[in-house]
Amino acid sequence: MLNISLIGAGRIGKLHAHHLMENADCKIVYVADAFEENAIALAADTGAKVVSAEEAISAKDVDAVIIASPTDTHSHYSHLALDAGKAIFCEKPIDLDLSRAKKIADHVGETNLPYMLGFNRRFDPSFMRLKEQLPLLGKLEQVLIVSRDPSPPPVSYIEHSGGLFKDMMIHDLDIARWLLPEEPTEIFAVGDCLVDPEIATAGDIDTAMVTLKTKSGIQCQIINSRRAAYGYDQRIEAFGEAGILKADNPTETTTTFMGKDGATGDKIMHFFLERYADAYRLQLNAFVDSVVNGSPAATTVDDGVKALRLAEAAKESLDAGKLVTI
Amino acid sequence: MLNISLIGAGRIGKLHAHHLMENADCKIVYVADAFEENAIALAADTGAKVVSAEEAISAKDVDAVIIASPTDTHSHYSHLALDAGKAIFCEKPIDLDLSRAKKIADHVGETNLPYMLGFNRRFDPSFMRLKEQLPLLGKLEQVLIVSRDPSPPPVSYIEHSGGLFKDMMIHDLDIARWLLPEEPTEIFAVGDCLVDPEIATAGDIDTAMVTLKTKSGIQCQIINSRRAAYGYDQRIEAFGEAGILKADNPTETTTTFMGKDGATGDKIMHFFLERYADAYRLQLNAFVDSVVNGSPAATTVDDGVKALRLAEAAKESLDAGKLVTI
Amino acid sequence: MLNISLIGAGRIGKLHAHHLMENADCKIVYVADAFEENAIALAADTGAKVVSAEEAISAKDVDAVIIASPTDTHSHYSHLALDAGKAIFCEKPIDLDLSRAKKIADHVGETNLPYMLGFNRRFDPSFMRLKEQLPLLGKLEQVLIVSRDPSPPPVSYIEHSGGLFKDMMIHDLDIARWLLPEEPTEIFAVGDCLVDPEIATAGDIDTAMVTLKTKSGIQCQIINSRRAAYGYDQRIEAFGEAGILKADNPTETTTTFMGKDGATGDKIMHFFLERYADAYRLQLNAFVDSVVNGSPAATTVDDGVKALRLAEAAKESLDAGKLVTI
Amino acid sequence: MLNISLIGAGRIGKLHAHHLMENADCKIVYVADAFEENAIALAADTGAKVVSAEEAISAKDVDAVIIASPTDTHSHYSHLALDAGKAIFCEKPIDLDLSRAKKIADHVGETNLPYMLGFNRRFDPSFMRLKEQLPLLGKLEQVLIVSRDPSPPPVSYIEHSGGLFKDMMIHDLDIARWLLPEEPTEIFAVGDCLVDPEIATAGDIDTAMVTLKTKSGIQCQIINSRRAAYGYDQRIEAFGEAGILKADNPTETTTTFMGKDGATGDKIMHFFLERYADAYRLQLNAFVDSVVNGSPAATTVDDGVKALRLAEAAKESLDAGKLVTI
Repeated sequence: MLNISLIGAGRIGKLHAHHLMENADCKIVYVADAFEENAIALAADTGAKVVSAEEAISAKDVDAVIIASPTDTHSHYSHLALDAGKAIFCEKPIDLDLSRAKKIADHVGETNLPYMLGFNRRFDPSFMRLKEQLPLLGKLEQVLIVSRDPSPPPVSYIEHSGGLFKDMMIHDLDIARWLLPEEPTEIFAVGDCLVDPEIATAGDIDTAMVTLKTKSGIQCQIINSRRAAYGYDQRIEAFGEAGILKADNPTETTTTFMGKDGATGDKIMHFFLERYADAYRLQLNAFVDSVVNGSPAATTVDDGVKALRLAEAAKESLDAGKLVTI
Repeated sequence: MLNISLIGAGRIGKLHAHHLMENADCKIVYVADAFEENAIALAADTGAKVVSAEEAISAKDVDAVIIASPTDTHSHYSHLALDAGKAIFCEKPIDLDLSRAKKIADHVGETNLPYMLGFNRRFDPSFMRLKEQLPLLGKLEQVLIVSRDPSPPPVSYIEHSGGLFKDMMIHDLDIARWLLPEEPTEIFAVGDCLVDPEIATAGDIDTAMVTLKTKSGIQCQIINSRRAAYGYDQRIEAFGEAGILKADNPTETTTTFMGKDGATGDKIMHFFLERYADAYRLQLNAFVDSVVNGSPAATTVDDGVKALRLAEAAKESLDAGKLVTI
Repeated sequence: MLNISLIGAGRIGKLHAHHLMENADCKIVYVADAFEENAIALAADTGAKVVSAEEAISAKDVDAVIIASPTDTHSHYSHLALDAGKAIFCEKPIDLDLSRAKKIADHVGETNLPYMLGFNRRFDPSFMRLKEQLPLLGKLEQVLIVSRDPSPPPVSYIEHSGGLFKDMMIHDLDIARWLLPEEPTEIFAVGDCLVDPEIATAGDIDTAMVTLKTKSGIQCQIINSRRAAYGYDQRIEAFGEAGILKADNPTETTTTFMGKDGATGDKIMHFFLERYADAYRLQLNAFVDSVVNGSPAATTVDDGVKALRLAEAAKESLDAGKLVTI
Repeated sequence: MLNISLIGAGRIGKLHAHHLMENADCKIVYVADAFEENAIALAADTGAKVVSAEEAISAKDVDAVIIASPTDTHSHYSHLALDAGKAIFCEKPIDLDLSRAKKIADHVGETNLPYMLGFNRRFDPSFMRLKEQLPLLGKLEQVLIVSRDPSPPPVSYIEHSGGLFKDMMIHDLDIARWLLPEEPTEIFAVGDCLVDPEIATAGDIDTAMVTLKTKSGIQCQIINSRRAAYGYDQRIEAFGEAGILKADNPTETTTTFMGKDGATGDKIMHFFLERYADAYRLQLNAFVDSVVNGSPAATTVDDGVKALRLAEAAKESLDAGKLVTI
C-alpha cells in the first residue's frame, strides 16, 4: 500500500485523486493546496488530511508525492520531495526554465529516486497502440503530429505560460521523442499569431509548424493551433517502408445521419479531460505500479528536460528563420 | 440522500455498486447475496452492512432497492420491496413468465411506487443520440437492429435462460419499442441453431431474424446471433422519409494500419461490460435522479411486460411459420 | 471479332453501346429501336446500320444480340434470336410472367446457345470482392441486403412493372441466390405503401422486408424502399462463423468537413447509372468474353427464372402472412 | 468542332486521346511520336493521320495542339505551336529550366493564345470539392498536403527528372498555390534519401518535408515520399477558423472484413492512372471547353513558372538549411 501526498487540489489534482482512489495499491494520506478550501473539499472526498505542502512532502508515513500545483512551484516541491526521499509524480513541465529543469534532473540522478513526469498522452490507448505497432512499418521514415486545442487559454495565462512551444507543443515534442527511434538533432519552426491578436501582444504565437530531423534523416512534422472549431484535434501518423499507422480522433458517439445533403457525424471529444480520460487513469496507475514494483518510470525527468530543450530550440529557429542543431 | 439496499453482489451488482458510490445523491446501506462472501467483499468496498435480502428490503432506513440477483428471484424480491414501500431498480427481465411479470406490473400499479427496469441499452450514448435525432427523419418507416454476442453462454445457462427471444432478443425488442412511434402489432420470426448443436439439444436456437410491424405499417427487423467472431455487434439503423440514422459499433482504439494488403482497423468492444460501460453508469444515475426528483422511470415495468409479450409472440411465430398478431 | 445487333437504343441501350465500342473484341453492326430516331442517333455514334429488330436478329453477319428493349418484348426477341442461332444478352427480367420465362429457359436448354441475363449488380467491384472473400467467413449464416432507390418511378411505370418484388427486389433476390451456398427454400415478406399513396392505388407496395431461409437454415434478409432521400442505398452484409463482410455505399468524393457541429461527408452515388457504372462495363465485357471464349455465362436464364419464382413467392407470402415454401 | 494535333502517343498521350474521342466538341486530326509505331497504333484507334511533330503543329486545319511528349521537348514544341497560332495544352512541367519556362510564359503573353498546363490534380473531384468548400473555413490558416508515390521511378529516370522538387513535389506546390489565397513568400525544406541509396548516388532525395508561408502568415506543409507500400497516398487538409476540410484517398472497393483480429479494408488506388482517372478526363474537357468558349485556362503557363520557382527555392532551402524568401 503506497501512501501518497497530493500537492494541488485543483482540476488536475482532483482528477488524479479520483484515479488514486480507484487504485487498490495506494491511498491518499495528505492533501495540500495554496487555496485551503480546495484542499478541504478534496480531503472530504478522499478521507485524506489537509496539511501544508511542506508537511505533506516531509511526512514520515508518506511514500510518494504527486505534484499537481502551479508550474512555477514544480521545481521547489520536486527538490523538497527528493530531499525527503519520496517517489515523485510531477505534472509537466518540470519548469519553464531549462537550467532549473536540469537541476531537478541532476538531483533525481543523485538520489536515484523514482520520478515520473506527467506526459499523459503517452498513455492514450490509440497512441499506445500506434507505438506498439511501429514494428509493422519496418524502418520509420516520417512522423506527423497534429495537435490543436479547441480554444486558446486566457491571455493572462499565456503571458506566464512560457509560450506555445513550452506550454503546448511540449506534449507533441515529447510524443515525437517517444515515437522516434533516435533523438531529433535538428529543428525548424514557423509560427504566427493568426487566431487572436492579443496573443501577439502578449509576445506569443498561436499557430505553428515545426519540423524535426534525426541523425539518420527521419523527419517529423508537428502542426499546432491554439484553436480548432471542431474540438480537440489530436492525431498521429507514422510512415515507414512497409506502410502507415494512423491514430485518429475519437468521436463522442458513433451516430451518423445521411440525408439529401450528404452525411453528418458526431463531434470529436471536446478537450483533454474527455479525450485523455483513459490516459490520465492509465498514467497514474503506471506511476503507482512503477513505484510499487520498482520498475522504471514511463516518462522520466530526462524526458522533461529533453522536450524543454527542443521547445527552446524551436523558439530559436523561429526567431532566426533557420534550421537549429540541438 | 437516497439510502439504498443492493440485492446481489455478483458481476452486475458490483458494477451498480461502483456507479452508486460515484453518485453523490445516494449511499449503499445494505448488501445481500445468497453467496455471503460476495456480499462481504462488496460491503468492504462500499462501507455497507451485510444482511439478508429480506432484511435489506424491509430495513426502515432504506429508500430504494436494487435487485441484481438471479432472474428467478426478481419477482419475489420485487413483491417484497413493493410491500415494503421502496423504490425499485430491477435488472431485466422482470420474470421469464409473462403472467408473473404482469403480477409485478399490477402490484406496481397498485402501490404507485417508482419501479425502473434495467434495459441498459437505452442509455448507450450513441443509441440515445440516434433517438434524439429521429425527428431528422420525418416519418419513420424502417428500423434495423443488429445484435450479436461475441460467444454463446454455457449450455447450462441456456437451459434456464428462457430461450434466445426472452434472454437475448428481449433487449432488441425493447429497443424496437423505444424507437418506434407506436406499438408493434405483428411479428414474424425465423430461427435456427447454426452455432452450436448443443444449444439445439437444449431446445433453443442461436441465430434468428425477427420482423415487426406496427399498425401504420412501419417495419422493424431484428438480427441476432449468439456468436460473432469480431466482438459484440450492436448496431441500429433508422430510416425515414428524409434520410437514415445509424449508430455503429465503437472500436477499442482509433488506430489503423495501411500496408500492401490494404487497411486494418481495431476490434470493436468485446462485450457488454465494455460496450455499455457508459450506459450502465447513466442508467443508475437516471434511476437515482428519478427517485430523488419524483420523475417517471425511463424504463418501466410495463416496458418489461411488453417486451416479454413480444418475445413470446416471436416464439409462437417461429413455431407456426406465420405472422403472429399481438 | 463478335458482330453484334443491339435491340433498343434508349438509356440502357446507349450505355451498352458505349461499352461495346470500347471493347476491341466486338463490333455493333445493327441497331434497332421502335422509336427510329433513337436508332438513327445511336447508329450515327457507333457506325452501325439501322434496321428493324427482326432484321437485326436474323442478319447472317451477326453473332450476338443484345436485348435492351422494353420488358414486354424480351420474350419475343429472345425466342427469335434463339431460333436464329445467336448468342444473347438480355436485360432483366426475362419476362414478368413466370411461365413465359420458363419457356425461354426451355428454349435456351434445347438450343444450348449462350444466354446471359443482365443482373448487373453481380459485377459491382465491391460486391464481387465480398463474394470472393466469402471463404474468410467459414460457414455462412446470415446475409443482409439493403437496397433502396433514391425515388420511386412514375406511377404509370409502376402499373406495368410487375410490382416491387418482380421489378425492384428481383435484383436483390438474385444477389441473395448468388451469395448463398444453396437455394432458398422458404420465404416470408412484409410490405406496405409508406412512400406514396398513389403506388397503393396502383396496387403496389413501396416498402418491404423479405426473409429467406435455405434448407440448412441460413437466413437472408432483404430490405427495400422505393425512396431514399440520401441517394441509392445499396449495401450487403454477409455474416459467418469467422466474422462479417460488408460492402458499403461509395461516396461521390472523399471530402469531409468538420466544424463546431460535427463532421459532414459527401453524398453517396445518386442512382444506378453512377453507382453501377463499373458494373455495367464489366458485365458487357463478361458477356463478350464468354461468347468469344465459349465459357459459361455469369448469369444464366435459369438465374432469371429462379429470381422470378422467388419474387412470386414473396408476393404470395405477403398476401398470406406466412412463410411460403418454394 | 476543335481540330487537334496530338504530339506524343505514349501512355499519357493515349489517355488524352481516349478522352478527346469521347468529347463531342473536338476531333484528333494528327498524331506524332518520335517512336513512329506508337503514332501508327494510336492513329489506327483514333482515325487520325500520322505526321511529324512539326507538320502536326503547323497544319492549317488544326486549332489546338496537345503536347504529351518528353519533358525536354515541351519548350520547343510550345514555341512552335505559339508561332503557328495554335491553342496549346502542355503536360507539366513546361521545362525543368526556370529561364526557359519564363520564355514560354513571355511568348504566351505576346501571342495571347490559350495555353493550359497539365496540372491534373486540380481536377480531382475530391480536391475540387475541398476547394469549393474553402469558404466554410472562414479565414484559412494551415494547409497540409501529403503526397506519396507507390514506388520510385527507375534511377535512370530520376537522373534526368530535375529532382524530387521539380519532378514530384511540383504538383503539390501547384496545389498549395491553388488553395492558398495569396502567394507563398517563404519556403523551407528538409529532405533525405531514405528509400533507395541509388537515388542519393544519382544526386537526388526521395523523402521530403517542405513548409511554405504566405505574407499574412498562412502556413502550408507538404510531405513527400517516393514510396508508399500501401499505394498512391494523395491527401489534403485545409484548416481555418471555422473548421477543417479533408480530402482523403479513395479505396478500390468499399468492402471490409471484421474478424477476431479487427477490421480490414481495401487498398487505396494504386497510382495516378487509377486515382486521377476522372481528373484526367475532366482536365481535357476543361481545355477543350476553354478554347471553344474563349474562357481562361484553368492552369496557366504562369502557374507552371511559379510552381517551378517554388521548386527551385525548396532546393535552395534544403542546401542552405534555412528559410528562403521567394
